[in-house]
Amino acid sequence: MPVLLAPEQAPTLHELLRDANTAGLDSQIIQAPNMPEPRIRGLGSLLYAGPSEISFLSNPKLSDQLADCKAAAVILTPQAYQSLFEEATPLRRDAAPSTETIQPTAATSTAKAAPLSFHVVLCSRPYLMYALLAQWFDRHRLDSLATGIHHTAVVADDAELAEGVSVGPHCVIESGARIGAGSRLGPACIVGAGSVLGRDCLLHARVTLYHGVKVGDRAILHSGVVLGADGFGFAPDPRQSTGAWAKISQLGGVAVGDDVEIGANTTVDRGALEDTLVGNGVKLDNQIMLAHNVKIGDHTAIAACVGVAGSTVIGQRCTIAGAAMISGHLVLGDDVHVSGGTAITSNVGAPGRYTGVYPYAEHTQWQRNAAVVSQLSQLRRRLRALERSED
Amino acid sequence: MPVLLAPEQAPTLHELLRDANTAGLDSQIIQAPNMPEPRIRGLGSLLYAGPSEISFLSNPKLSDQLADCKAAAVILTPQAYQSLFEEATPLRRDAAPSTETIQPTAATSTAKAAPLSFHVVLCSRPYLMYALLAQWFDRHRLDSLATGIHHTAVVADDAELAEGVSVGPHCVIESGARIGAGSRLGPACIVGAGSVLGRDCLLHARVTLYHGVKVGDRAILHSGVVLGADGFGFAPDPRQSTGAWAKISQLGGVAVGDDVEIGANTTVDRGALEDTLVGNGVKLDNQIMLAHNVKIGDHTAIAACVGVAGSTVIGQRCTIAGAAMISGHLVLGDDVHVSGGTAITSNVGAPGRYTGVYPYAEHTQWQRNAAVVSQLSQLRRRLRALERSED
Amino acid sequence: MPVLLAPEQAPTLHELLRDANTAGLDSQIIQAPNMPEPRIRGLGSLLYAGPSEISFLSNPKLSDQLADCKAAAVILTPQAYQSLFEEATPLRRDAAPSTETIQPTAATSTAKAAPLSFHVVLCSRPYLMYALLAQWFDRHRLDSLATGIHHTAVVADDAELAEGVSVGPHCVIESGARIGAGSRLGPACIVGAGSVLGRDCLLHARVTLYHGVKVGDRAILHSGVVLGADGFGFAPDPRQSTGAWAKISQLGGVAVGDDVEIGANTTVDRGALEDTLVGNGVKLDNQIMLAHNVKIGDHTAIAACVGVAGSTVIGQRCTIAGAAMISGHLVLGDDVHVSGGTAITSNVGAPGRYTGVYPYAEHTQWQRNAAVVSQLSQLRRRLRALERSED
Repeated sequence: MPVLLAPEQAPTLHELLRDANTAGLDSQIIQAPNMPEPRIRGLGSLLYAGPSEISFLSNPKLSDQLADCKAAAVILTPQAYQSLFEEATPLRRDAAPSTETIQPTAATSTAKAAPLSFHVVLCSRPYLMYALLAQWFDRHRLDSLATGIHHTAVVADDAELAEGVSVGPHCVIESGARIGAGSRLGPACIVGAGSVLGRDCLLHARVTLYHGVKVGDRAILHSGVVLGADGFGFAPDPRQSTGAWAKISQLGGVAVGDDVEIGANTTVDRGALEDTLVGNGVKLDNQIMLAHNVKIGDHTAIAACVGVAGSTVIGQRCTIAGAAMISGHLVLGDDVHVSGGTAITSNVGAPGRYTGVYPYAEHTQWQRNAAVVSQLSQLRRRLRALERSED
Repeated sequence: MPVLLAPEQAPTLHELLRDANTAGLDSQIIQAPNMPEPRIRGLGSLLYAGPSEISFLSNPKLSDQLADCKAAAVILTPQAYQSLFEEATPLRRDAAPSTETIQPTAATSTAKAAPLSFHVVLCSRPYLMYALLAQWFDRHRLDSLATGIHHTAVVADDAELAEGVSVGPHCVIESGARIGAGSRLGPACIVGAGSVLGRDCLLHARVTLYHGVKVGDRAILHSGVVLGADGFGFAPDPRQSTGAWAKISQLGGVAVGDDVEIGANTTVDRGALEDTLVGNGVKLDNQIMLAHNVKIGDHTAIAACVGVAGSTVIGQRCTIAGAAMISGHLVLGDDVHVSGGTAITSNVGAPGRYTGVYPYAEHTQWQRNAAVVSQLSQLRRRLRALERSED
Repeated sequence: MPVLLAPEQAPTLHELLRDANTAGLDSQIIQAPNMPEPRIRGLGSLLYAGPSEISFLSNPKLSDQLADCKAAAVILTPQAYQSLFEEATPLRRDAAPSTETIQPTAATSTAKAAPLSFHVVLCSRPYLMYALLAQWFDRHRLDSLATGIHHTAVVADDAELAEGVSVGPHCVIESGARIGAGSRLGPACIVGAGSVLGRDCLLHARVTLYHGVKVGDRAILHSGVVLGADGFGFAPDPRQSTGAWAKISQLGGVAVGDDVEIGANTTVDRGALEDTLVGNGVKLDNQIMLAHNVKIGDHTAIAACVGVAGSTVIGQRCTIAGAAMISGHLVLGDDVHVSGGTAITSNVGAPGRYTGVYPYAEHTQWQRNAAVVSQLSQLRRRLRALERSED
């Protein structure tokens, strides 16, 4: 369960919206009758939010859950709010439904009290408002953490730490590394020689940047992330016994844009000669592997357990679902969407969704059908033969 | 090769069984003729166990290996023991086969000497007895390790460490964390703010618990495990250039039951609002990814490289074999068994085994058949056409 | 972009070849007219190498890139060099083509100046020469790093560190561990009790060796590698509620040969009773999982995201491409090549290439064809019926 703010730290509903709504979304508070303005200690789902928490409804299919919602306040679209009074939803109403028309405004204001057991925040984008509130609560937690350079951290004399940088216990900042203002490093992070981290980055515990890695502003890097390990490059080595490999030392780096998030235990290898590139706004989930010289376009999102082999270029605004595998030396254009578990083995030019998953079945049924997969070419031949004999 | 106990530390066969057989399994020692009771320094397979080690036969197909077994003692079922004297197995016998009937008893006792070159431990469950002995040897190794709080560990003033807790070098225990009695943390473990670890847990080197993670009693967590990294949650952000994502900060936690083991580099993300749940007795292998809000039922075992996408619920006593991939927002019932490499893309209600793997073949043969996969729908149409023309 | 050597550290072209060409490859320098011998500060691709860098041409298809190459020197085969003067490649020539016949010799020597804007290094194996140069530059970088035992490292009194061993900040070397001469450990590495590391190994930051792990000479281990975590072994435990598992403690170790490289976040589990084995010259990419008792033959190379289940034996000189999955208890012979994303589910005896990948397609097209996969057995029956009715 989410940790709640202590009551004395909790903002009022107005204060919360004022501080958290950094996007200037339209919002209007409709107070529940006879209820004082609540202090909001946390954020919860409709089912589980408690009486000190705020919740939201973004998926209309869940509107039934409003009936038993115990939240102090709920974010609703004006449409969802109005439909509450039109449908037979068994809300815990304290009075007859109001018929006034709600006009959301860009500024947060207080309208007449609604006949509900919770306060309502009208907003045309409840899901984005929820995202902003969640960010606010997490920022609040972060701001309460210790700052400064922990005395067990090992920071090279010639490393440059800008103003307000926090370095946790047992971190190692190597020679020539630079860290931008306001960045926070959790415990046991390592920033290799000459690597550069931008402003306002958040490195959770145990992130590893090798030497020669550049990360832009506002990055969020999770535990176990490794940026800049050697790409997998070997040449057959005729000097040694048959089959031996000579290492191709990887001299490139890794360059990561601004506003990138990288999930736990994801690895991005350094390039062979040039940099491996991760564009602005890219979101990488856990346990992803980007091989050397891969390039990921801006705002592309990749789910967990995906592997992208060497030198492949993926365009902008793509989504790659979990456990997809992309072969090396390919080009995927912008706005390409790859389904989970799909192996992409050739270039993909046109935007669209691409899939290649063997359908699962009960085991013996799968066995029966899979046996035929190995005869498909023969089956087609037999079909052709029949067709010819028809003619 | 397994490390052997020093001779002076090694228990006699009787002592070993007395101390290791914590499950009270039936067992009876049948001494080899003219051999003193051995001290058992380690545990080995039938092929490789040396003369100071104990071995076991659980798979009857391996009984031929008894002939050359050099172990000091071997655990056998009464049936396997008797069949030794019925078959023509060329055992290194020192005398004619005994014909006495062996009556295993619940207590360990010594029967008449057997005409074999190794001592026999009769037990109706040799594999489970082996497991217990292996646990004993590993516990013995653990008990020899240093305990206490290493002076390089960084432990917050308000963290609560119960009696007998061991904290290795370079660990970090953050504010408000609580660790139950008898738990051991290897080097460089991190327990985030407010996280709770139960009693008698074993954290190998370099385990990371974020803030707000709860782990039950007797957990075994391996190196590189990350519990509580952010789930992969983003909302389209209309404020920014097309395609940008707004982070949905993940406010839930991770709750892990009792008797759970989690393998190296496995990651379990924190929930968006509620906790990600791992039930009692769950066993997770290496490099598994459990996304936010996943729920794993009691005693389910998941092999390596499996990914489970967000909000999926898996029942009790399931087994998910290696590299299977489970899509998000699904429900898998109890006693569902998923084959390796299988992608589960819809709910699975009925117990049973489910498979979906493309059969491999020699490459050119695969190419020929795979070319037809992309025409299957057309093939079926052509077949229908032929069938109609038959009528 | 690769970090360049400072001008005063940069070797001349002759010095570089003399020092880097440890394989004694044939090489001959052909100086560009009117250009002094350059100092080489780095290595770059034909497209991006700058005027202080050396480049190479190994793939004849890229020879067009020579025209605009700004490198100080380029490694070429004699054939490629000659063809420059035969083809109409628009090179930046300063004079008419030379017609002299180039006779490469085993020793580096200087021939007559070539009429090109870059110096030429003639070599019959440009790719291997490039590998050697890249190794030289990386070794140069490594040699500039601090050595010795960092004061924050925790080294057991009875650990044995041979001459010239470097141990980075926050490392932990446990009791009885032994590290061979010239090995370097980056920050936060852990070498468990009694583990043995050979000579001249390079452990990047945050490598974990459990107890009882042996690694040979010249290993390169990347961040997040975990050698020796417990194999995934459990026996049904009838003592507890239905479905509970009894742990089989893993008493074997891991034994890694000489000249092995292991990529970031790869895990190799310890054996149940005997060791898990990784042969000499084996190359493992990132995020690979080798389960307990796996054996990998010499010079086999495995790409990222591959899983090999327990007790499987893979031969020598195999290549396993990315995201392939090998089931347990199998034997793959020597010189077997497995394609990416392929699941190997039975023994593979004959050398060759093996593939099993579901072909991807545009999503709706995939849907149409995949629907037939579940009817293949029935389809074959219908085809047979038609064939019989033909007769």
